[in-house]
Amino acid sequence: MANTSITAPKGFRAAALPCGIKVSGKPDIALLVSDVPATAAALFTQNAVVGAPVIVGRKHIGAGTLRACIVNSGCANVCTGQRGIDDAFTMCRLTAEAIIAEDGELPIAQILPFSTGVIGRFLPMDKIHAGIPRVAARLSNSAAAGEDFAQGILTTDLVKKTAIATLTLGGKKVTIAGCCKGSGMIAPNMATMLAFIATDAAIALVPLRKLLKQTADATFNCVTVDQHTSTSDTLAVLANGLAGNRTLTGGPDLTKFAAALYEVCDSLARQIARDGEGATKLVTVIVTGAASPGDAKRAAEAIANSPLCKTAIHGSDPNWGRFVSAAGYSGARMVADKSACKVGSMLVFKNGRPTSADLAKVESIMRKENLTISVDLGTGGRGTHRVYTCDLSREYITINADYHT
Amino acid sequence: MANTSITAPKGFRAAALPCGIKVSGKPDIALLVSDVPATAAALFTQNAVVGAPVIVGRKHIGAGTLRACIVNSGCANVCTGQRGIDDAFTMCRLTAEAIIAEDGELPIAQILPFSTGVIGRFLPMDKIHAGIPRVAARLSNSAAAGEDFAQGILTTDLVKKTAIATLTLGGKKVTIAGCCKGSGMIAPNMATMLAFIATDAAIALVPLRKLLKQTADATFNCVTVDQHTSTSDTLAVLANGLAGNRTLTGGPDLTKFAAALYEVCDSLARQIARDGEGATKLVTVIVTGAASPGDAKRAAEAIANSPLCKTAIHGSDPNWGRFVSAAGYSGARMVADKSACKVGSMLVFKNGRPTSADLAKVESIMRKENLTISVDLGTGGRGTHRVYTCDLSREYITINADYHT
Repeated sequence: MANTSITAPKGFRAAALPCGIKVSGKPDIALLVSDVPATAAALFTQNAVVGAPVIVGRKHIGAGTLRACIVNSGCANVCTGQRGIDDAFTMCRLTAEAIIAEDGELPIAQILPFSTGVIGRFLPMDKIHAGIPRVAARLSNSAAAGEDFAQGILTTDLVKKTAIATLTLGGKKVTIAGCCKGSGMIAPNMATMLAFIATDAAIALVPLRKLLKQTADATFNCVTVDQHTSTSDTLAVLANGLAGNRTLTGGPDLTKFAAALYEVCDSLARQIARDGEGATKLVTVIVTGAASPGDAKRAAEAIANSPLCKTAIHGSDPNWGRFVSAAGYSGARMVADKSACKVGSMLVFKNGRPTSADLAKVESIMRKENLTISVDLGTGGRGTHRVYTCDLSREYITINADYHT
Repeated sequence: MANTSITAPKGFRAAALPCGIKVSGKPDIALLVSDVPATAAALFTQNAVVGAPVIVGRKHIGAGTLRACIVNSGCANVCTGQRGIDDAFTMCRLTAEAIIAEDGELPIAQILPFSTGVIGRFLPMDKIHAGIPRVAARLSNSAAAGEDFAQGILTTDLVKKTAIATLTLGGKKVTIAGCCKGSGMIAPNMATMLAFIATDAAIALVPLRKLLKQTADATFNCVTVDQHTSTSDTLAVLANGLAGNRTLTGGPDLTKFAAALYEVCDSLARQIARDGEGATKLVTVIVTGAASPGDAKRAAEAIANSPLCKTAIHGSDPNWGRFVSAAGYSGARMVADKSACKVGSMLVFKNGRPTSADLAKVESIMRKENLTISVDLGTGGRGTHRVYTCDLSREYITINADYHT
């Protein structure tokens, strides 16, 4: 079977192992390595409180070159002061040393650190010390190794999240592969929980950075599970150039690459929403007729984050007044008399009053696992926005209230 | 037993009856009447989508004089276009006619209409027509009638919410009595779901309006159950002057009156939070050390609205990182290295790192029914804000997902 994992692009190896950080015994240290220095860009959370790996990562990404991403799950290393920063740096040093063992040389700043899990606890550094060399020793470009990596970064996620796209640039086959984790504390602001994109494309740093920001804004930044922007959100892309295409700097080839990157990121973003904690449905909220794109975003996020909307969707209750009223309190300009609401393709509210839509039919649309809610704000403006989210279930409460940290 | 209901101030009568609007057979039309024209002020929702009673009510409150409040529960008369506005006006006309029968004369604009319940349905006007004269015929100044009124305005509320304060102004005993409803779709913006304050104080219109706004900002507008600002929020105060005090326009007596009004509104606000849908705890969130009052409000609301914070509180999970990270994503300026967090009186996070607080003790504090969460943003600023909220339980999902509208 073809390799569709993060190791599918040329020159990427990965591995993951359980090293005792998670009490569950599941894999909790994961490593992704490019065989050659890769042109790299990353986006980080806009939360005012950020994890130690984000503080270290912002420095390391500065030069635009990475060799590896080292990840632990089970402890986020957030709210841990200087000791946490030292620990994140140590993770990079141990990784560089483990790879140096086979390569000869590697600047520590070419390693990007990631941690995800509970906030306010120090990393168990004994387990990190013992674990990183063991994980590095298992690095492989096999599909299984790529799948292990996708598994090793998870926390409350129920499923691995991967996506892949291939394209041809100047006769060379280029592969873009991604994987990510994220299920709770998901309302990305500039990036998502943790997402990794590996590609063998050759691309210049400046367009790569610009493209990553544009793509994240249209994909990961349109996801919300619980409006709680994480302290650890990071999205990193490594482009190692081993596909042998002429280095992308602009023109039609860059556009083609951008479309493929969008496809990978959009797929991952949807997978995060669908695997939101306790989710039973993937919900797409579309707002149109807004006075500005910002207004459309405000209204779409209000709907996607309202627990009243999310529970109505969970129960397949055709109570569309909740969607309209959420848009109404969002702060977006709205002309109630000209506004409208659709559930799936069924118009339930038009020109400020109910249509004659059969609510039993609306309910049957709402029972689907993949649901679109559309609201037109009635201003006649051209502002639109789309958000991916999920429903709110008892299982969300169970996950977040019952099992103590 | 002393009358502590909305009919306790001199010259107020009330009544409520089941008239068939609610399928449950519970009281669904309620009427509050002042024996003489009362100086009156009201605040309404800031949602861009407002109920028909809000549209009519904004006109009727203009002159600053009211005789009565007519309320139905079970149908909010929202998203119902011109027909809904006509229906709200008809409610006022029927009420005026029913009271004219005993009084002789009554301008329709001295009636304020209220409706609460599901959005997007037309009022069953046959039931309203039949019900209002029946309710008016039962008007009484008894304690029982006041309690009936407090019951008749409820929807998903589990308990009646009433508060009373008395004071002496220039030798005259003055009474301020209030009642309100609100349990879901609660994130008041300018007022709460439905709240009624009756007082026999004599007070001029201008200071009454100013006082109502100030008091609402510090009480009802500090409540959030589910961040979903309703389309129907209305707070009305009727001051009929029958206490015989010299009309309040300023000075120490107005200050005394303001303190008593605050006491009544603050009590009602807490009662709404404690009776939030599915709530098991009353939670007070206090933010200090903010660069501005607006920043403090943003951070406190982010904590109070985060489902991750609300579920941690529900499960008494001492996962304080959720409180700190919610403040972090709120948009408020925060100096992570100098920030702090308390659960009850126990300091769990200080200067950007965990204290040695015993998490088992923190958990036992969190088990209490009345809990305070405090976060200092570490900017050294003097901005503070306090929000009342509740936890998020499975019962919230059951109430909002399982029972179809």
